[in-house]
Amino acid sequence: MSTESVFYGINALTNEKLEGEFINASKEQVDEAVKKAVLAFGNYRKKEKDSIANFLDQIAEEILNLGDSLLERCHLETALPLGRLQGERGRTMNQLKLFATVVREGSWVDARIDTAIPDRAPIPKSDIRHMLLPLGPVAIFGASNFPLAFSVAGGDTASALAAGCPVVFKGHPAHPGTSEMVANAIIVAAKKTGMPEGTFTLLHSNSNEVGEVLVKHPEIKAVGFTGSFRGGKALFNYANSRPEPIPVFAEMGSTNPVFILPRALKENWENIASGMAGSITLGVGQFCTSPGLSFIQKSDSIDAFYNKLSEGIRNTPSATMLTSNILKAFNNGVQNTLAIEHVEELASGLASESTNVAVPKVFKTTIENFIKNDSLSEENFGPSSVLVEATSKNEILEAARNLEGHLTATIHGTDQDFEDYKDLFDILELKVGRIVINGYPTGVEVCHSMVHGGPYPATTAPQSTSVGTNAIKRFVRPVCFQDYPDAFLPDALKADNKLNIWRLVNGNLEK
Amino acid sequence: MSTESVFYGINALTNEKLEGEFINASKEQVDEAVKKAVLAFGNYRKKEKDSIANFLDQIAEEILNLGDSLLERCHLETALPLGRLQGERGRTMNQLKLFATVVREGSWVDARIDTAIPDRAPIPKSDIRHMLLPLGPVAIFGASNFPLAFSVAGGDTASALAAGCPVVFKGHPAHPGTSEMVANAIIVAAKKTGMPEGTFTLLHSNSNEVGEVLVKHPEIKAVGFTGSFRGGKALFNYANSRPEPIPVFAEMGSTNPVFILPRALKENWENIASGMAGSITLGVGQFCTSPGLSFIQKSDSIDAFYNKLSEGIRNTPSATMLTSNILKAFNNGVQNTLAIEHVEELASGLASESTNVAVPKVFKTTIENFIKNDSLSEENFGPSSVLVEATSKNEILEAARNLEGHLTATIHGTDQDFEDYKDLFDILELKVGRIVINGYPTGVEVCHSMVHGGPYPATTAPQSTSVGTNAIKRFVRPVCFQDYPDAFLPDALKADNKLNIWRLVNGNLEK
Repeated sequence: MSTESVFYGINALTNEKLEGEFINASKEQVDEAVKKAVLAFGNYRKKEKDSIANFLDQIAEEILNLGDSLLERCHLETALPLGRLQGERGRTMNQLKLFATVVREGSWVDARIDTAIPDRAPIPKSDIRHMLLPLGPVAIFGASNFPLAFSVAGGDTASALAAGCPVVFKGHPAHPGTSEMVANAIIVAAKKTGMPEGTFTLLHSNSNEVGEVLVKHPEIKAVGFTGSFRGGKALFNYANSRPEPIPVFAEMGSTNPVFILPRALKENWENIASGMAGSITLGVGQFCTSPGLSFIQKSDSIDAFYNKLSEGIRNTPSATMLTSNILKAFNNGVQNTLAIEHVEELASGLASESTNVAVPKVFKTTIENFIKNDSLSEENFGPSSVLVEATSKNEILEAARNLEGHLTATIHGTDQDFEDYKDLFDILELKVGRIVINGYPTGVEVCHSMVHGGPYPATTAPQSTSVGTNAIKRFVRPVCFQDYPDAFLPDALKADNKLNIWRLVNGNLEK
Repeated sequence: MSTESVFYGINALTNEKLEGEFINASKEQVDEAVKKAVLAFGNYRKKEKDSIANFLDQIAEEILNLGDSLLERCHLETALPLGRLQGERGRTMNQLKLFATVVREGSWVDARIDTAIPDRAPIPKSDIRHMLLPLGPVAIFGASNFPLAFSVAGGDTASALAAGCPVVFKGHPAHPGTSEMVANAIIVAAKKTGMPEGTFTLLHSNSNEVGEVLVKHPEIKAVGFTGSFRGGKALFNYANSRPEPIPVFAEMGSTNPVFILPRALKENWENIASGMAGSITLGVGQFCTSPGLSFIQKSDSIDAFYNKLSEGIRNTPSATMLTSNILKAFNNGVQNTLAIEHVEELASGLASESTNVAVPKVFKTTIENFIKNDSLSEENFGPSSVLVEATSKNEILEAARNLEGHLTATIHGTDQDFEDYKDLFDILELKVGRIVINGYPTGVEVCHSMVHGGPYPATTAPQSTSVGTNAIKRFVRPVCFQDYPDAFLPDALKADNKLNIWRLVNGNLEK
């Protein structure tokens, strides 16, 4: 399938090859992985909920067991600092454990029971029961920017396994060694907890063809993806061109607009400027929720704000990006932004001679100019951001109305600002998955209420989230059981409710 | 857009024009309807839940207020008997009232709250809240076969309005007079309960172009459809080719396979044969859940079963179909089935000289022959059914494994059959939206547990249902509110829970 049969991990700090060869998966290997997943599914989907929960917990344990060697390999492949990777490993483990908790508790299956009324006129009412069941083998694509938390054992894998779906995982070629280690941890956990072979398979590849073959495989029933718009949209198109179209849950990033309202600017310009500088450059700007765009209403304090933000950026050292290609794309984006008329470079970070380093950039323009140039609202993955200066409330609201779908929007305001800009809340509710008040969009809490998603083009599936416990709902569908003998019902729907889960019985939620 | 500017309702019993002209909507009228819906949305989505519930109840009331004239017009346009239409009106009203109950109770919004932990290390935890919010204006397409319950004020409209979405409705050209009357009832109800203009608009058309323009309108955010595979798939393709793809909830029918297991056949052949004859011919077979395909394992009783079923079919009078085109398609389907080698006509209903009448047909073939002819598993909308004779359990299971997605599957068996055919349950769980035991698939209960949906090609959205209270979830998406001042949160998420709804607070369901 690929022109080269092997590829290598690359040291992001030096562009040198790292130890270890990785074999580009062939079409036959994709097919074999999916067929194994199909076989595994028959057994895996019938596992008791405690077994699946134990499996998820065990994956977390096995990842920890990999010790520092995982973090060290990952650091070489991604240039992400060890401290950050330690935190990300914790988050990855917490995600697995959180889904274990959800599965163990069990109510997520949305059990519903409407009892029979045999003597109802004119026709008797049947006994009808409902629950969510897993879709089948799922294809998941690793992201480059979270080599642990959005990669092999990341949130997509954790939620698909929690739902009862085997996973065929396409590893990101920017961290194949990390992927291999984590995949082994999953497989060890599967063996230790008695999960069938084929419940999880990692496929390596540094070409896009494996992804296409995988998504078009007739036995794949859903797709999870985190990455670029181009990549996600391509998978979406493949999935819809199949004889049997399947859902694609692609999180494709966004510019995460920030609105800074006049009173907040006046009263709090110093803190907001520092916070913005930190959020723009956090993790070398390599977050889906990085604030790439801000709308600021002009006022007396605006120059102080600019100065403070510029100072923050100017003092931020340039830092190594994940790969040389990502850096190239970032630098192209910077050049393209600079080439737009009436766009001014407000500040630039500390330059450096090191390999693959990105220099943080903040640009400034007017709202008039912003509206004329669509490309200013496109994401440039990395530590750059565009500040758009508005001269009135109406301009701010109009800018909000013209937004496409984003993962997040942020509003900085005082209580009086919120009263004055009430419409802004209403507009943003229709544009994004998450609205942050007086904070920063970077930092996605893994919890029951999180929505990491949003209207297209932020995702291909605005009705879902890829972070938080609701992510499990992506990989299931409802099935209804009519007039079943109790013994043949799934445990979640049996009369005795021995699982002790919340169920909607004749419209009333009860245990 | 259309070649003709007006069209007429047609008397299904005579093919004569009925009173009243209906104007084919122009592209401009589509645009106007959607723009009004956008304006309405801003107001409608903020209505208190009781107001929306009252609106839904009022629609039911206004439909009843139309009195017998609605049923009479509907009877002329569809040839459906008055008794059936009276029942269907009752169901339509009950659907509206059921969604009113769901909206009034309020917990359907999936409110979730994760409270802040300001002193968490290394980073504080924000206050994060989650609920489902309406998508925006929805395009809905009326079905021909349920001129009330799946048409203008049917389940799709009821669930979209319940979710907070304005509806632009493309009426089915087979019953424009009925559509007009019901649309007026909705508009009267909207006025009486203070809903904004544009919350509901009916567009007439007897061409497909209006549908295309409507689905491609940039302000339409989701599509509901019940009808043919060809129609549903076309809308799905339009929706995915938009600059902003949108979800299409198309229920496209299926053949609803029935499995008759050996002991049940032996012990209960008489009842099953009568039940099948009734289910095949009910409503002239014009149901999405009509049993078009049965798998029967050969045994001593099979001939008695065939004879009894044949008797039932032979005694069933031919009856008028919804339109002359639907009859034409049905008769073509019958001819195509007969033209297949080794397919035998088992029984034919009573012929008649009347206009637009379909003669019920039951065909018989072997499983070997069935596997060779894909077209035998395709739906022929109307009172026809194919019986497939198997000679072993393995053949039955293999047939089940080879099924595409269907709305329903039915198993007739004794307890011993169920033990012997346990694998059949497991296979069918992956193939359909609803499994019926010892019953018939026709008859779709409107309740909390119903799933009227299923894997592709039964629908384009296997993760949803178009009947039952869960249908509301099709028209919403999750939105997350981070660190909001209480006053700016939606009522469902405010600290006081004055709506008294179930909420998931830090992982615990509570009121």
